[in-house]
Amino acid sequence: MSEVATTAFPIEVLQRFAARVFVHHGVPEADAATAAEVLAASDLRGIDSHGVARLWCYHDMLLAGRINPRPTPRIVRESPSTATVDGDNGLGLVVGPWANRVAIAKAREVGSGWVSVCNTNHYGIAGYYVLEAIRAGQIGWSMTNTTKLVAPLWGAERMLGTNPIAIGFPGGEEPPIVVDLATCAAAYGKVEIARRRGKPIPEGWAIDEHGYGTTDPDAMVHGGALSPLGGDREHGGHKGYALAIAVDVLSCVLSGANWGPFAPPFTLQQQVPARSVGKGIGHFFGAMRIDAFIDPAEFGRQVDDYVRTLRATKPAPGTEGPLIPGDPERDAERERRVTGIPLVAPVVADLQRVARETGVPLG
Amino acid sequence: MSEVATTAFPIEVLQRFAARVFVHHGVPEADAATAAEVLAASDLRGIDSHGVARLWCYHDMLLAGRINPRPTPRIVRESPSTATVDGDNGLGLVVGPWANRVAIAKAREVGSGWVSVCNTNHYGIAGYYVLEAIRAGQIGWSMTNTTKLVAPLWGAERMLGTNPIAIGFPGGEEPPIVVDLATCAAAYGKVEIARRRGKPIPEGWAIDEHGYGTTDPDAMVHGGALSPLGGDREHGGHKGYALAIAVDVLSCVLSGANWGPFAPPFTLQQQVPARSVGKGIGHFFGAMRIDAFIDPAEFGRQVDDYVRTLRATKPAPGTEGPLIPGDPERDAERERRVTGIPLVAPVVADLQRVARETGVPLG
Repeated sequence: MSEVATTAFPIEVLQRFAARVFVHHGVPEADAATAAEVLAASDLRGIDSHGVARLWCYHDMLLAGRINPRPTPRIVRESPSTATVDGDNGLGLVVGPWANRVAIAKAREVGSGWVSVCNTNHYGIAGYYVLEAIRAGQIGWSMTNTTKLVAPLWGAERMLGTNPIAIGFPGGEEPPIVVDLATCAAAYGKVEIARRRGKPIPEGWAIDEHGYGTTDPDAMVHGGALSPLGGDREHGGHKGYALAIAVDVLSCVLSGANWGPFAPPFTLQQQVPARSVGKGIGHFFGAMRIDAFIDPAEFGRQVDDYVRTLRATKPAPGTEGPLIPGDPERDAERERRVTGIPLVAPVVADLQRVARETGVPLG
Repeated sequence: MSEVATTAFPIEVLQRFAARVFVHHGVPEADAATAAEVLAASDLRGIDSHGVARLWCYHDMLLAGRINPRPTPRIVRESPSTATVDGDNGLGLVVGPWANRVAIAKAREVGSGWVSVCNTNHYGIAGYYVLEAIRAGQIGWSMTNTTKLVAPLWGAERMLGTNPIAIGFPGGEEPPIVVDLATCAAAYGKVEIARRRGKPIPEGWAIDEHGYGTTDPDAMVHGGALSPLGGDREHGGHKGYALAIAVDVLSCVLSGANWGPFAPPFTLQQQVPARSVGKGIGHFFGAMRIDAFIDPAEFGRQVDDYVRTLRATKPAPGTEGPLIPGDPERDAERERRVTGIPLVAPVVADLQRVARETGVPLG
C-alpha cells in the first residue's frame, strides 16, 4: 500500500510503551492508561499523525514542565445540561476523556450534556470522544482548537487551527456513522509528505507567505498557511473558515481558553504567541441521549436503513460508490489489529529517543 | 452591482404582501406574520433565493393542499434539555420558529435546549433561527434537510439535500458572529445563473448524470448533481459529504422525518420520492445560555476581541482582508433597508401570478 518503508509494531507494544512513558513523567497509572488508549485509537484507525508519532511532543512538553502530569480537572461553572471545565493544564489525552464523561453523565440526567474546556492541551483524535459516547449508547460531539496553521479566507497569515469537528451516531446492526473532519482543506501531514517527495500540492490546499495560492509545499511550510475547507471563495473557502471560527468560539471563547492565533504551541519547537487571552487550548464536547428524542430501537433501524441506502448509491465512474463516514477508519483498525501499526523510520527514531531519555524500553 | 435589470421593492411592501397571501390560504394572522418575517429576513440579508422569490412555491403547495395552513405543532417526546416536535405538516416558516422557541425556553431552564422536528416543510434561511436565539442572549444552532440535490462523494446521483448549518454567537460591542452555510460546494442558484448566461461553472461544483465532474451547468441541471463542500476527494469532498449526513441524521433520523433521497419536494413541479421513511422534512435547533458556561460580559468582551483580531489579519493580495461570518448579510441589510429589495423580472412575474390567483394586490 505505502510507497515508504515501514516497520510494523503490534498495537499492544506501542500502547504499553506510551503508558509507561507517561508514568515515567509522573502521570498516575490510570491517567497514563487513558492517554495511551487515546493514542492507540488513533494509530489503529489509521490517523498516523495523531498517534504514537506524536509521543515525543508530549514527552518533550512534560520534560520541560509545560504540561502538568497530575492535573485536577474541575467544573468551574455548570447548569443541568452544561459545564465549563478547567483542565489544570493536564494532558488533553487525560482532561479530554474526563470532560467528555461529564457530558455523557449530564446527558444521562437531562437528555444532553455540553462541556467547554479550558486550560488543556492537545487531545488526540476528535473521533475518540464520540466513540466513547457511542459506547454509552449516545450521540457524541467533539471539537478542539489547535495551534495556528490555517489562514482565514482573504487572509495572508496563519490565524486559526485546523479545528476539527467530530459527530458520531450509533447504528443498529450497521456500524456507527462517525463524522470526523478538520475544517481545513487538507492536513498539514499531506503537505509534509509532498514536500519530502518533492511533489507539488493540489491547488486550493495552501497559500504562500504573501497570501497567494500556491502548489509548492515549501512555500506553505515556510511562512505560508493551509487554506480553509473549500479553498478559495469560489469553491466555498468562506464555509470552512466559518466552521473553524464556530469550533474556536465553542471550544475557547466559551471556556476561557486561548483562541485563534493565541493558541499555545503543541511542541517545544513552536513559537509561544506574544499574547495570551486565556488558559491553554480549548475543547468542546457534547452528548445526547437518543431516547430523549426517539425510541432507540427505531433510531437504530433508521440509521441502518440510512447506511444501506447511501451504500446503494449509483457509483461514480472509477469508484466503488460512496463510503459511510467511519468506514476508512474501521477498515484500518481491522487490518492493523492483525498486521500491526506501520511506522516510518523517523517515527521509530523519535520513539527510540524517547526510550533512551526515559529508560522505558520500546517493545 | 448586478448585471441584470431589477425593480426595487420596499421590504414592507413585500412582507405585507407575503403575510396577506398566507392569510388568504387560511394561515392564522399571527402565523402569517411570522412566516412573512422569515422570508423578509432572507431578502433583507441578501439571500434572494430564500425570500419572496419562493413565495410562489408556498402558494402552490398551500393551494394544492400539500401544506397544512393551520397546524398544531406539538412536542411528542422530551427531556429537560431536549424535545422532538411534530410540525403537523405546517409551513416550515411557522413550525420552525415554534420549535426554535422550545429550544430557547429549554436553554433558559436547564442551560441548553435541542429540538429535532419532523412533519414540517421548507423553513427559509437557517440564519433566521440563530438570530432569534441571539436576540434572547443565547448561542443558536439551526439545521435542516432539503429536497435531494447533492451527490455523496463517489456517488453519481442526487441523494442528499443542501443541508445547511447555522451557528450564531452574540457579540458585545461588535455585531454577532453568524455562521450560515450549505454543506454543498456552491448554491444551485449559482448554477442556474451561469446556465442562463451560457457560462461554464467552476470545477468542483457539480457532476453530470454519469457522475463525472462537469463545468457545464446544463449537465448539472439535467440529471447531474451538486458536489459536496470541498468538491472532489483531493479537495475535501468527503468532509462536506460527512457534514451533510450529520445534518440529515440530526434533523430527520432523530425526529422521524424523511431523510436523504426521500425528502419530499419543495415545489409541485418536483417528483415525489417513491418511498417515504418518515413524516415531512426535518429541522434541528439548538440554544445555549451563555451564563451556563461563562460570565456573559466576559464572553462579549472576548467575542469583540476575536472579531477585531480576525479583522486585523494581514490581507491577501487584492482583498481588504477577512470578513467575519455575518458581515455580507449585515451589509446587504443596511443597504436594502434604504434602497429596497431588488427583484429580477421573473420573480416579479411570479409574484404577480400569486397576486392574480389570490386577489391580494402586490404593493
